[in-house]
Amino acid sequence: MAKKRYNVAVVGATGAVGTEMLKVLEERRFPVKGLRLLASARSAGRRLAFNGSWHTVEPLNGRRFNGIDVALFSAGAVRSLAFAPEAVRRGAVVVDNSSAFRLAERVPLVVPEVNPQALTRHEGLIANPNCSTIIMLVALAPLHAAARIRRIIVATYQSVSGAGAKAMAQLYDETRQALRQCTVNSVQCTVKPILAPRTSHLTPLPQQIAFNVIPHIDRFLSNRYTKEEMKMAQETRKILGEPALALSATCARVPVFVAHSEAIWIETERPLTVERARALLRRAPGVRLVDDVARHAYPLPIAAAGRDDVLVGRIRRDESVKHGLALWVSGDNLRKGAATNAVQIAELLIQRTA
Amino acid sequence: MAKKRYNVAVVGATGAVGTEMLKVLEERRFPVKGLRLLASARSAGRRLAFNGSWHTVEPLNGRRFNGIDVALFSAGAVRSLAFAPEAVRRGAVVVDNSSAFRLAERVPLVVPEVNPQALTRHEGLIANPNCSTIIMLVALAPLHAAARIRRIIVATYQSVSGAGAKAMAQLYDETRQALRQCTVNSVQCTVKPILAPRTSHLTPLPQQIAFNVIPHIDRFLSNRYTKEEMKMAQETRKILGEPALALSATCARVPVFVAHSEAIWIETERPLTVERARALLRRAPGVRLVDDVARHAYPLPIAAAGRDDVLVGRIRRDESVKHGLALWVSGDNLRKGAATNAVQIAELLIQRTA
Repeated sequence: MAKKRYNVAVVGATGAVGTEMLKVLEERRFPVKGLRLLASARSAGRRLAFNGSWHTVEPLNGRRFNGIDVALFSAGAVRSLAFAPEAVRRGAVVVDNSSAFRLAERVPLVVPEVNPQALTRHEGLIANPNCSTIIMLVALAPLHAAARIRRIIVATYQSVSGAGAKAMAQLYDETRQALRQCTVNSVQCTVKPILAPRTSHLTPLPQQIAFNVIPHIDRFLSNRYTKEEMKMAQETRKILGEPALALSATCARVPVFVAHSEAIWIETERPLTVERARALLRRAPGVRLVDDVARHAYPLPIAAAGRDDVLVGRIRRDESVKHGLALWVSGDNLRKGAATNAVQIAELLIQRTA
Repeated sequence: MAKKRYNVAVVGATGAVGTEMLKVLEERRFPVKGLRLLASARSAGRRLAFNGSWHTVEPLNGRRFNGIDVALFSAGAVRSLAFAPEAVRRGAVVVDNSSAFRLAERVPLVVPEVNPQALTRHEGLIANPNCSTIIMLVALAPLHAAARIRRIIVATYQSVSGAGAKAMAQLYDETRQALRQCTVNSVQCTVKPILAPRTSHLTPLPQQIAFNVIPHIDRFLSNRYTKEEMKMAQETRKILGEPALALSATCARVPVFVAHSEAIWIETERPLTVERARALLRRAPGVRLVDDVARHAYPLPIAAAGRDDVLVGRIRRDESVKHGLALWVSGDNLRKGAATNAVQIAELLIQRTA
């Protein structure tokens, strides 16, 4: 009997994550019958390649979801709020990459390696977690299962692609401009701020990113954390099913194109040695252990970019607390942090209905 | 009566920190009588400007310290070990920027805003702390005095100038090379690793730094921390006079030319509100509070570069622990992290002998 095939819509198909979704659907041979590419009116008419043929991008509206089995949304929370419920009403199962529904009670928030069981009950809408949360939890879930994590401290080093294709262009343009103004001799490089401070409604990133670090991702909340930082806390609690888990995050943007890195400290309820953690991570799904410091092997964003595995390394005791471990991870935010995770969720969904 | 003037030697005068030392001596009008510039034989003969006249760099050897009152060393631990004791024997007071003597029992390790009292007893040799330690402690000392810090977690975002002028050239060269290979369209930038992994004896940094993050500064120790990470712990304990203070650091290099940033979490013995911390930091010496997130004001390395103040912001409660605060700092590693701190120590020394 022929394998069942599905009509798939990709919403936000021309964006940094959308184009990655097409690549991942192709690479993983997702059983696509028909493909519908949706985006803003501005991008409509563009043609994108998929499985060797060209597909024209159509403007997003509710009727486009008629006949769609699986819709992958990555066009921002506003568009998801407006169109994801409608897609569900018209019969599609939606995997939504925006933050719109992640914390909604009846919406599963899923990392397939971590909580696939959350998919058993859904009402047509499944949320894909934040990229930084996914990358962290792929690494932490096996440690949590073994020793129960009670507290997480995390500092992120996030790439500009997390803010979309325009932020990548901003890094590229600013870097070119900075290098033109820069004179390096053997003594001193005079690269200095090249642009006046800007506000987030003018450029994709709220400050110059070339040769800079910006401790500001998403908007600021009343508790002085950013929404990105609070996403990491709230989503982690929901995915692990640990509402009391303590977490404090500082999220910063660095001048990297693709792949986020994170410095993580965990405190566990039960003791967990470095050796045990390494053994657990060596066989953990979605993880590649890169932890041989004598050979200068540790996760790097340029090594994680383009891969689905989360690279985990620099595992060591945190002697500053009773049952503490420190580690360092790098993962491709467009792939495992977004597109790959969404397609994996879709794969689980069709396995269940098959 | 004329102000007393001093014969000053700068060892490592042509390096990233050495040239900054000359600038800082000039800016702060340090009472220089004679200036002697010392460096490796390779740099000897070069001429550097100071106070409007040219000075020729001489090759480093012991006899050069005859008649020198104050010697500022920034030429690496090997040269400090070889020449700093000899400079002291020949009558100079040495301020050493290397790690060679920092943890030696009879050598004061001084941040003038934090522990100037440590200078009361010295034997001719004073150590300048690691740049990351200085920048962190200028921000934390007022909080420690108010509420006693018991534990510190810190993730660093360190600029390449911390590894010297050659590392700055590496970032510059690699970035130019990467941009030439990069094509950005509106969808995707294909910047990928451009160079094979390298080892630290071939280039100043152990990996590609352009569009990358390297969680590896200084060498790895048997506990899997790097020496840079352990410096932060050991030096902090010595400077604060708190041998039991708990600290775990992850130190990473980012593609920034000048100024280090740090995400810091502290746990204090006594409660400390965000408002109190802000009030303390607003009047703290060497600190500039940049903490108005509604106006997108927070510390940035490009804003800290070229300044002596450490920028402190993003101050907020760490709800994940009893008395916890999180903050973000940026400071110029060549200035306050090295040259300015060394010259400030020299200023305190001559005040005491005046």
